[in-house]
Amino acid sequence: MFGKKYFIIGDIGGTNTRLAIIDSNNTFLLKKYYKSKDFGTFSDLLDDVLKSNSLRISKACFAVAGPLNADRNQCHMTNIDWNINSDELKAKYRFEKIILLNDFEALGLSIDKLNKSDKSELEELTSKGFDTKGVIALIGAGTGLGASILYRLKDKHLPLSSELSHHSLPIDASNKLEQELVKYFNKKKIVLEAESVVSGKGMTNIYEFLLSKKIKHNKKVMNEIKKASIEEKPVLITKYACNDKDLLCIKTLNLFIVFYARIARDLAMTSLCSTLIIAGGIAPNIIQVFRESFIEAFAQHEHIEARKLLENTSIYVITDQDATFKGCINAMSLL
Amino acid sequence: MFGKKYFIIGDIGGTNTRLAIIDSNNTFLLKKYYKSKDFGTFSDLLDDVLKSNSLRISKACFAVAGPLNADRNQCHMTNIDWNINSDELKAKYRFEKIILLNDFEALGLSIDKLNKSDKSELEELTSKGFDTKGVIALIGAGTGLGASILYRLKDKHLPLSSELSHHSLPIDASNKLEQELVKYFNKKKIVLEAESVVSGKGMTNIYEFLLSKKIKHNKKVMNEIKKASIEEKPVLITKYACNDKDLLCIKTLNLFIVFYARIARDLAMTSLCSTLIIAGGIAPNIIQVFRESFIEAFAQHEHIEARKLLENTSIYVITDQDATFKGCINAMSLL
Repeated sequence: MFGKKYFIIGDIGGTNTRLAIIDSNNTFLLKKYYKSKDFGTFSDLLDDVLKSNSLRISKACFAVAGPLNADRNQCHMTNIDWNINSDELKAKYRFEKIILLNDFEALGLSIDKLNKSDKSELEELTSKGFDTKGVIALIGAGTGLGASILYRLKDKHLPLSSELSHHSLPIDASNKLEQELVKYFNKKKIVLEAESVVSGKGMTNIYEFLLSKKIKHNKKVMNEIKKASIEEKPVLITKYACNDKDLLCIKTLNLFIVFYARIARDLAMTSLCSTLIIAGGIAPNIIQVFRESFIEAFAQHEHIEARKLLENTSIYVITDQDATFKGCINAMSLL
Repeated sequence: MFGKKYFIIGDIGGTNTRLAIIDSNNTFLLKKYYKSKDFGTFSDLLDDVLKSNSLRISKACFAVAGPLNADRNQCHMTNIDWNINSDELKAKYRFEKIILLNDFEALGLSIDKLNKSDKSELEELTSKGFDTKGVIALIGAGTGLGASILYRLKDKHLPLSSELSHHSLPIDASNKLEQELVKYFNKKKIVLEAESVVSGKGMTNIYEFLLSKKIKHNKKVMNEIKKASIEEKPVLITKYACNDKDLLCIKTLNLFIVFYARIARDLAMTSLCSTLIIAGGIAPNIIQVFRESFIEAFAQHEHIEARKLLENTSIYVITDQDATFKGCINAMSLL
């Protein structure tokens, strides 16, 4: 193996971290999954992979869930108390080169590399086909809410950073229930911003609000959700909504998707995208629900010109679990 | 004048149209102002300039208030029933080259050409200086609401199109008065979108809503505003707010600026801009009001990280009346 070059790439989230080692042909030699919270620092986690193998790793590219600083060498992560500094990592592990990306920049950089006609990579919710010429907007609810606007440069799409999580709450102020949700958030000191309804935690916030409104529900299901971890709650709510077992879960998922679609609509109007791509952990598991409810809510607009634009937008879901890895690989070839 | 090259550039709005003829050194030979509604088509208006002089115009660049089609050769304008087709204009006037821009793309293309330390071109509301490295977000209320996100490519800033006018209403759903504004808009069939509160017409909508709430006001002022044209109403409201003559006008302007700042905040969070630039006809005339009220409302956010980002954003107002012309000139050198 002497002389051969190996690279490490990573998808570093507040909940899960995935690392991979690839060779210079982009062949995967190793993939490892971790619970991020099992480690005090990212470097502790990296030790686990790098100290247990003898490959000479020359380059690294990490996609991190959080905003980078202006010099792009540091990120204090969202949802976990990790500070990632690329200069320190470069020195410690003697990388020749290291690239830090925001996780949605990495997803953005994967788009040109995903096969648009392979449903295990990208699945279309509409039936318009992929417009490679226009602007692409990427949005994704997972542990948090992320986004990126991709502009076109020659034949490539390049991502801009975003903090869409802090966008204002997508509330219909003439809707009584939604007015009450805002009151409830105020009372519970939940921040009034998009991520508080459009994310895993956001889905749980909606569930707990609707529970406080005494909506009919299955006691056993409620107790199971109550006892579950923060990460498990939205998984259970989605499960009991999709198997029609619990009215409260169904109402929660409906409202969640409406909020998701409204934020996506504002992003689409702001970016005038011709293609909207939904990323994040929630959509791929319930594509049929998105096909039915998301598209309808997305295109709801009182202005006819806006409605036309929204109805003409192609909507895709990223189904490829390795999309972030593919974005890291693309970044290493571009940057 | 034989052999010399001349260019025509234009800022084509629903209310006003400004045309200029320049030579190849970008010296202005002629500037003309028109009321757009005095002409049935844009071509009729263009005849007025081009038929009355004998200069050989080889290139044209027009910034139009409305979204372009995907091929960028056509625009059905917002706020006036004009259809602008660049192929037809090119053939009719025998231009060698013609460029159509959206008006906010043109403003975006002017930014690199404006003098950041000359208050008659760009005036800073904050005191942070201009960050040339980051993303710039441009927003502007005039007849309508426009915007553009400018990404950096080497030493240039290039504009993306936007339809921010159709962004959702920036309503605080826990505020009684704002809930009533939504009800009023529903009753009056005013579209629930950003432009309905953040534009000249939007300011009038707010005024008429507050009038319906029986807020104390000066009868003479009210009658003057009532009789004024659509274009004059926001000018009068602003005037009577700034000279402290009318409580209703003061409350209208306050609410208008809060809505404006909230939409700008969503744009800033979506684009993660380091500089926000306010364009449009309203801000330059009341810069002091913006310095006091806009900045405060802009940085209001319950999330501490979001607040930090917003407080660190440089905010400028475009004061240069020829900014759109400068953007057209820059476009002709770039495209």
